[in-house]
Amino acid sequence: VPDGLFDGVLARGEAAAAVGDRAWLQAMLDVEAGLARAEASAGLIAPEDAEAIARACVAEEFDAAALGAAAASSGNPVVPLARALSERVGGDAAGQVHRGATSQDVLDSAAMLVARRALAPLLADLWGAADAAARLAAEHRSTPMAGRTLLQQAVPVTFGLVAAGWLNGVGEAATRLEQVRAERLAVQLGGASGTLAALGDDGPAVLAALARELDLAEPVLPWHADRGRIAELAGALGGAAGAVAKAAGDVVLLAQTELGEVHEDGDRGGSSTMPHKRNAVAAISARACARQAPGLVATLLAAGEHELQRAAGAWHAEWRPFSELLRSTGSAAAWLRDALEHLRADPEAMRANLDRTGGLPLAERVARALAGTLGREAAHDRVREAALDAARSGRPFAEALQARGVGDAAGLLDPAGYLGSAEAFVDRALAAHARRRP
Amino acid sequence: VPDGLFDGVLARGEAAAAVGDRAWLQAMLDVEAGLARAEASAGLIAPEDAEAIARACVAEEFDAAALGAAAASSGNPVVPLARALSERVGGDAAGQVHRGATSQDVLDSAAMLVARRALAPLLADLWGAADAAARLAAEHRSTPMAGRTLLQQAVPVTFGLVAAGWLNGVGEAATRLEQVRAERLAVQLGGASGTLAALGDDGPAVLAALARELDLAEPVLPWHADRGRIAELAGALGGAAGAVAKAAGDVVLLAQTELGEVHEDGDRGGSSTMPHKRNAVAAISARACARQAPGLVATLLAAGEHELQRAAGAWHAEWRPFSELLRSTGSAAAWLRDALEHLRADPEAMRANLDRTGGLPLAERVARALAGTLGREAAHDRVREAALDAARSGRPFAEALQARGVGDAAGLLDPAGYLGSAEAFVDRALAAHARRRP
Amino acid sequence: VPDGLFDGVLARGEAAAAVGDRAWLQAMLDVEAGLARAEASAGLIAPEDAEAIARACVAEEFDAAALGAAAASSGNPVVPLARALSERVGGDAAGQVHRGATSQDVLDSAAMLVARRALAPLLADLWGAADAAARLAAEHRSTPMAGRTLLQQAVPVTFGLVAAGWLNGVGEAATRLEQVRAERLAVQLGGASGTLAALGDDGPAVLAALARELDLAEPVLPWHADRGRIAELAGALGGAAGAVAKAAGDVVLLAQTELGEVHEDGDRGGSSTMPHKRNAVAAISARACARQAPGLVATLLAAGEHELQRAAGAWHAEWRPFSELLRSTGSAAAWLRDALEHLRADPEAMRANLDRTGGLPLAERVARALAGTLGREAAHDRVREAALDAARSGRPFAEALQARGVGDAAGLLDPAGYLGSAEAFVDRALAAHARRRP
Amino acid sequence: VPDGLFDGVLARGEAAAAVGDRAWLQAMLDVEAGLARAEASAGLIAPEDAEAIARACVAEEFDAAALGAAAASSGNPVVPLARALSERVGGDAAGQVHRGATSQDVLDSAAMLVARRALAPLLADLWGAADAAARLAAEHRSTPMAGRTLLQQAVPVTFGLVAAGWLNGVGEAATRLEQVRAERLAVQLGGASGTLAALGDDGPAVLAALARELDLAEPVLPWHADRGRIAELAGALGGAAGAVAKAAGDVVLLAQTELGEVHEDGDRGGSSTMPHKRNAVAAISARACARQAPGLVATLLAAGEHELQRAAGAWHAEWRPFSELLRSTGSAAAWLRDALEHLRADPEAMRANLDRTGGLPLAERVARALAGTLGREAAHDRVREAALDAARSGRPFAEALQARGVGDAAGLLDPAGYLGSAEAFVDRALAAHARRRP
Repeated sequence: VPDGLFDGVLARGEAAAAVGDRAWLQAMLDVEAGLARAEASAGLIAPEDAEAIARACVAEEFDAAALGAAAASSGNPVVPLARALSERVGGDAAGQVHRGATSQDVLDSAAMLVARRALAPLLADLWGAADAAARLAAEHRSTPMAGRTLLQQAVPVTFGLVAAGWLNGVGEAATRLEQVRAERLAVQLGGASGTLAALGDDGPAVLAALARELDLAEPVLPWHADRGRIAELAGALGGAAGAVAKAAGDVVLLAQTELGEVHEDGDRGGSSTMPHKRNAVAAISARACARQAPGLVATLLAAGEHELQRAAGAWHAEWRPFSELLRSTGSAAAWLRDALEHLRADPEAMRANLDRTGGLPLAERVARALAGTLGREAAHDRVREAALDAARSGRPFAEALQARGVGDAAGLLDPAGYLGSAEAFVDRALAAHARRRP
Repeated sequence: VPDGLFDGVLARGEAAAAVGDRAWLQAMLDVEAGLARAEASAGLIAPEDAEAIARACVAEEFDAAALGAAAASSGNPVVPLARALSERVGGDAAGQVHRGATSQDVLDSAAMLVARRALAPLLADLWGAADAAARLAAEHRSTPMAGRTLLQQAVPVTFGLVAAGWLNGVGEAATRLEQVRAERLAVQLGGASGTLAALGDDGPAVLAALARELDLAEPVLPWHADRGRIAELAGALGGAAGAVAKAAGDVVLLAQTELGEVHEDGDRGGSSTMPHKRNAVAAISARACARQAPGLVATLLAAGEHELQRAAGAWHAEWRPFSELLRSTGSAAAWLRDALEHLRADPEAMRANLDRTGGLPLAERVARALAGTLGREAAHDRVREAALDAARSGRPFAEALQARGVGDAAGLLDPAGYLGSAEAFVDRALAAHARRRP
Repeated sequence: VPDGLFDGVLARGEAAAAVGDRAWLQAMLDVEAGLARAEASAGLIAPEDAEAIARACVAEEFDAAALGAAAASSGNPVVPLARALSERVGGDAAGQVHRGATSQDVLDSAAMLVARRALAPLLADLWGAADAAARLAAEHRSTPMAGRTLLQQAVPVTFGLVAAGWLNGVGEAATRLEQVRAERLAVQLGGASGTLAALGDDGPAVLAALARELDLAEPVLPWHADRGRIAELAGALGGAAGAVAKAAGDVVLLAQTELGEVHEDGDRGGSSTMPHKRNAVAAISARACARQAPGLVATLLAAGEHELQRAAGAWHAEWRPFSELLRSTGSAAAWLRDALEHLRADPEAMRANLDRTGGLPLAERVARALAGTLGREAAHDRVREAALDAARSGRPFAEALQARGVGDAAGLLDPAGYLGSAEAFVDRALAAHARRRP
Repeated sequence: VPDGLFDGVLARGEAAAAVGDRAWLQAMLDVEAGLARAEASAGLIAPEDAEAIARACVAEEFDAAALGAAAASSGNPVVPLARALSERVGGDAAGQVHRGATSQDVLDSAAMLVARRALAPLLADLWGAADAAARLAAEHRSTPMAGRTLLQQAVPVTFGLVAAGWLNGVGEAATRLEQVRAERLAVQLGGASGTLAALGDDGPAVLAALARELDLAEPVLPWHADRGRIAELAGALGGAAGAVAKAAGDVVLLAQTELGEVHEDGDRGGSSTMPHKRNAVAAISARACARQAPGLVATLLAAGEHELQRAAGAWHAEWRPFSELLRSTGSAAAWLRDALEHLRADPEAMRANLDRTGGLPLAERVARALAGTLGREAAHDRVREAALDAARSGRPFAEALQARGVGDAAGLLDPAGYLGSAEAFVDRALAAHARRRP
């Protein structure tokens, strides 16, 4: 399990553990085991040798630190791992370990397993966050609050619509990740140069069998030097991180002392120096994790230019950001789920904030209502004058309108009467969630 | 058309033109026209007013520079555009221009149109590059060449397999982009805060009608503050740029003076100072364009955290990288197509390079053949000794094997006899291309 | 001048114009002229030929679009430019144009001139923004306002201290940029491979003379394939953009409707639909520009890996982000200057916001005062209880303290009495500004 | 010490260990100790209390994993650390732990210590790499090799000049990092909101004393929300990584099988499947590490926009990339040093490669020599024709020149006679290194 000094904040949820050394080691061993079985199914090695190999493929029996250190001279940890595995297997079967494969086959296929395993909790957390957002959307479908554009109060929305936006953003990002998980995680097996020459004519058969063994897709070609799958995964994770960051950022903003429209419930967020503070710790942590994604995506995309049949550096450059991106996005999802599951809305604070601007954000509505008689531009200008007067003098907008001969319009200033399709949109988002939720 | 000092290199193909000011302006006007018609179809405005508005929506009649300058005070170019459009429309219809919409509705929907229009030539160039790669793959299905891993000669491949790798990488990236184009380019319409309040109860109807007018998808919700669509488009473009960069990089490497295995045909690549040089100008330019993608993707992903109902900066921060990413990726695709359509392979040079290492890269094969009698590790060690001897002394590998009592194995050193599934993989890639090519 | 559809927002100030095609073209011509004169000073060409060349180096006489188009086949615009310049010069002097130089020499040296010319207005705007921040810091040295950590009210600060933070951040970033401008903008001259072989033994002399002609530093070596200078410039620009983003972000937050502590004065920020809004347009635009910097810096850094004596793509990949980074950062600086020069603070709003929390943020102070008698942990716990009580029940903090037997501490709740070294820090920032301001 | 599965490749050298949890924990404790002593020196706490605190500040006595886990609820590891430290100190002194500081003070100051400690081995490795490059430059000052532009042979250089380029690039990057280390690593101390209010009037005195205690610079202002220092450090590390990547990339290219001009000596680079391969493992690993820098720099720059008095996420988002950037750049430097210290050049291979093009790259020289009689353009065209003839037909360039009536020029085709200022530039680089090497 993650246990670093910063992991309390930056390695939340189970996805973080799923990209640790133990997980990688087991994934590599699963590939070696799968390869042996695939070769047995193709008649290349004896079934009992394959089983002997598979039995030895238990991560706990290997020393990750020693393998890591040994990787320095060979350039990757698979070289010492294959040797250590052969030693553990012993006997005749030892000679069948890693047969026909190259280091990158094992590491790339393992990366796909790691991704699949990390995506399970990551997606569970994303869907959990979506569920929590859906509950908020349903509960507050009609709770009026100030809309805010450019961080200035605008025409009203409902808190349900805000939550529906989080729901839909997270839901669409999760849907895309589901798609990548189902379609783009493929086994890699090419041998030294991608021809599977060491397997004679059996290359495609072993490739197909390995895909079945590992329950990964079978690629058209070995993809050792084609990193499109990693680019797609990275892009989808970057999108998910963005959806998390959007929702978390909104929580942070709405939780500001001066707004006070939401807070995270529970016993946390205490400050060492300011005992009264109730920080939105989960949302803040979600942002912190999510904001590492764009740079990691860029690193993975830039590392996609692999030279000829194996990259001289770009491949190795993927290893850490690959894990980090799964970890950061997974942690971001876990934190957002936490934040939304503990989020409490304060409709009274929302109403009080609406009242502060005395209907000014509804100037649009008033201007439109007056446009019929005054003309669009003139109505806009008249209302703008009144609004500026109100904003500057502090007098009520209704009064400022009155002073300009359009006092009848003051009846239009109730925010609850100007919610447009907010509730309909909430319903659409909930319906879409019900459709796409796995 | 692009005509800047660097556009000869950096703005290739028609995608570049499709993201210019003229194209953006027309797209914004198309949205205004579509909106008017959608509102007419919902009975909100008179059909003749809608047509009057639509008739005025001709980019050539507006001054992009003046609109751009006026955007400084309003924060975006739609404010002055809507005013200018009203003036051009005149009469009663003027008051119906931009009705119920906010600036971001117009700009975001226009961005989707710009993307769709730029993706047409971009995808045509990607598919064209794939077609060219397919021709090379078919023609050179069995042409042996050195495999190169970590830029060292490894077991042989065929040039057809190399080209099949380019084909498959580009083809899968194009397929993903097709998917984004078909599913994720959606109209944006939300009004000031995303409730479409100014349209009364007709919001959803107008939204659906506008989607039909513009032939864009209808979103579940207004997505003004949910940038998942842009993240998906960015990720897909980043993936396409990566596929281009991979292929272009290989061309550059194979065209090196000392390899000379490919060159770009045609009258170009001349150097101002070295008249003999035949630079792979198109491939180099493709790399140059493609390498701008990762940073642009990161910018767009980082800009995805929009505050509440409209971002205070993050939205505006998207405009330039959005266009640049389409332009760079489009230019990269156009250059790669050019490079591959003009690429000439030199099978003799490929053979000569293979001969240089005298079968050393086939040591794997020899070691495996000997493993049956000597055991895997011993065979590996014996062959390694011979190989090191050959590499260091320059004596032929066959001779060095002979000196170690395994001379019979020298018959295994013919590269053409050790191509594994190269040809089968070429066939798979060609078949996949035939299936997915639109 | 910039005049694109988005340039009103994204191309503010004179730095933007300084990176346009005209500016680049003139810079390249200045290099050609400087080279001719440098070669004349070394006796390689006749002084009258050099002057004939220099006289022809006028950007207005060349067709940037045609040169750009011609660059497609040669890979860069210098090849056609040198040919066009030779044609314009005519006679014997024509043969001396571009002598001994390679295209990259001209383009890289021109990039340094472009940078220097763009940095002049960019730095003027940064220093102008610093000056405006200094005025705010001085004027509001003692104006209390709520400190906000994690966007929750914390112990008070003064608005002067906030402005002093902007001042210092911008001032340090400007100082670093001044340093890069003075020390790292160096001429590039290496000829085809960096040996200046075409100049015989006169290479170093011509290099030194060219540096003098262009008033750029003389490098130890030709730096055609060593992009450290560009990395340093990029890093410094990225730092400056970050300083701008920080200040602009604070302005946006403090201008929120519910805080209302600052606003940008002047006739702008009007919304097309909400006439009452007074958006912080300049600060928002500053953020929008600044946020493009990190991705551009990454692109330039990633493009720094140039192959051997000239990069096959990485060099060309620098051109656009180099200009964009100067433009974006320059625009960000210009907008921030605008924002701060027009910024108006509202001390009454600041006081009202402080009053909202009734001294709760001063709990730290109370706890410390009580620690002497109660012990640190106990005092902390007692105060935390009172604070939570106040926060939850809405009763005044003073009363909640009273109820816990520590009512005397209520006298400590005046924010103006707990400003610590805020004023001293303001003075330090002003003094530092006076020292470092050029 | 680093011991992860990928650390053999990705965590080379001592800088990697210097950013581990143990190092961070000790740095935080050093800050707490320094703070206590600084407060004692200002008379705020008793000297014996300060010493009691300092004695307890030993990382081995704390449980990093437990602190990390506890950080989840408080948002950072300093809250539980300060509590644990108080418990360990016990007695009256316990109440003086962490006095007047906020969590970020401790973490930011610790980050500066971590950076300083990691920079020591990182800079030692950079300078070591520079020394190794200097030895190669001196030894091969006059060893001719082909220049290669756009990866095509160009006019010759010397291998010494190539190495001098690496030397100068690495040396300038190291010099910039030395500058950042000396000038920009500053203590952070601001208390809850940056006013040091809890220290009464003693804030500046304690700040100055803490700077002395930790041997860090004293800032003008607390910089908790001004991340310019981190941006400068990041930029300098990014520049260093770029200099490493450039040199490492050249090594990889020159070590290609078909060039064979350099190789890394020593017993490594063995492939699991191709026993003859002698991969440039160290250079490849250097590239792998260096290529992670641009994305990390972008993340740190983007995280620089801190809200008001403490960022709600951006601060936490720095932690991992801060360590990763030091680790990656440090590892890159260590690997490059390893590569260059073991690099062996093969002058015969260099000469053989030069001979392959039979003087074609010297066409420039020939054209210039002929320009006097034929005119510049005509000479260029004549030589280009001959060069194309030679390149296409395979006949010697000398013969092709002869066939065009300019056979006398063949005497100009000796590469060793056309090295221009290569040797002079080597001398300049060596002299500059001697001047700047600490």
